[in-house]
Amino acid sequence: MKYVRILRRDTPVWGVLKGETVRTLSAAPYESIQYDGESLPLSSCRLLAPCEPTKIVCIGKNYFDHVKEMGGEAPAKPLLFIKAPNTLNHPEGQVHAPGFVERLDYEGELALVIKKRAKDVTPEHFEEYVLGYTCLNDVTARDIQYGDGQWTRGKSMDGFAPVGPLVTDEIDGACADVETRLNGQVVQKGNTELFMHKLPELIAFITASMTLEPGDVVTTGTPAGVGPMKPGDTVEVEIRGIGVLRNHIV
Amino acid sequence: MKYVRILRRDTPVWGVLKGETVRTLSAAPYESIQYDGESLPLSSCRLLAPCEPTKIVCIGKNYFDHVKEMGGEAPAKPLLFIKAPNTLNHPEGQVHAPGFVERLDYEGELALVIKKRAKDVTPEHFEEYVLGYTCLNDVTARDIQYGDGQWTRGKSMDGFAPVGPLVTDEIDGACADVETRLNGQVVQKGNTELFMHKLPELIAFITASMTLEPGDVVTTGTPAGVGPMKPGDTVEVEIRGIGVLRNHIV
Repeated sequence: MKYVRILRRDTPVWGVLKGETVRTLSAAPYESIQYDGESLPLSSCRLLAPCEPTKIVCIGKNYFDHVKEMGGEAPAKPLLFIKAPNTLNHPEGQVHAPGFVERLDYEGELALVIKKRAKDVTPEHFEEYVLGYTCLNDVTARDIQYGDGQWTRGKSMDGFAPVGPLVTDEIDGACADVETRLNGQVVQKGNTELFMHKLPELIAFITASMTLEPGDVVTTGTPAGVGPMKPGDTVEVEIRGIGVLRNHIV
Repeated sequence: MKYVRILRRDTPVWGVLKGETVRTLSAAPYESIQYDGESLPLSSCRLLAPCEPTKIVCIGKNYFDHVKEMGGEAPAKPLLFIKAPNTLNHPEGQVHAPGFVERLDYEGELALVIKKRAKDVTPEHFEEYVLGYTCLNDVTARDIQYGDGQWTRGKSMDGFAPVGPLVTDEIDGACADVETRLNGQVVQKGNTELFMHKLPELIAFITASMTLEPGDVVTTGTPAGVGPMKPGDTVEVEIRGIGVLRNHIV
């Protein structure tokens, strides 16, 4: 299935996308699919981030080539950090950094949306907890991230987590091509086969410490090629089978 | 005013505490106080954390004596990290660490609860955004915090943020005595006059990057004396005018 979240008469509503038609739902699709009887052409819909996170749990340094470009060491265990809900941004949304930020970077990533409460999940059962996969741009104020040492402030500014355009269980998250384009130029190209810590391990590792809630997001780290953006730029994260997450720097 | 959040017929409800009586409210007290006509004796109430955070924004290293005991350097700017909502714990709640945690520390702190959406707040206006003050125990898996380098995992395990017992605007947050007791023994004693970064600066600094929502919590750092807890221990954080936040390690 392909799930979208749209703004309908100023109210967010979930829907199922089939072809070019969105059939809207009367509740989030975490437990079951309840159609509300309305259908809309996709072209008329304003898409929202297809998630409702209480937290976005992020993994640092999960592709070896990115660790290498950043000059650090590969962590033996997954390295976690959190983006709070204030970071959530939408497909085609504007990304704005405060004036004191000197370097604003894109980081294109595969993310997953949780469908049921998850605690102490064993690796072999991780898929039961996943509604599907989506794209996420882990926007980062690089100078703040490094200046602070702790990554929170540089990663958790308002609007620093665009997510979308849809969430789907129809792709294989274990071997997905992740591509980031800046003003149409390819700047990142990775495949999730190259993860140092793979999805079943990540979910088991996170849920050994934290309960994940339905609608929460887990994002899986970025491949090599991170770089800066400036006002006027358009940034796209594309994963085949999900689509293009496009955002505008202002 | 003194605000509490209680469990009434299995549903959380806000109330105003006067003497030993809780007058319950029909909505959170962020915008206005609407009594629902019911009163309960405090002694019959099970208290909940008096907040509804989308995030708990925390300050590291905000008392010089604590920076000294940890052997680090005092940061020129406030050092931010986040505890996600899964960390929220209640007065008299049990704190449980996963079996792989080797050292579980208390950190007694003054915290504040936000009453209206706050972005780009100037220091002189910070009080307009504060519902009141409460106690918070920034429970920390010290070995995980240091092992990871990033503090998120060691700080954001389930139940690692007890908050309470009430929130009040009747104390002066700028000169509040913070005391932590482990099994009745005083282990931390500080006063918020000793902050390196004071409340108006903290709120201005945080909201330059992040929007704070009603019910969010900002906690202000811990004084010297942090130390480990073990199952069977009782830990108390007391601030005069707020009361005692008591929790049990299991």
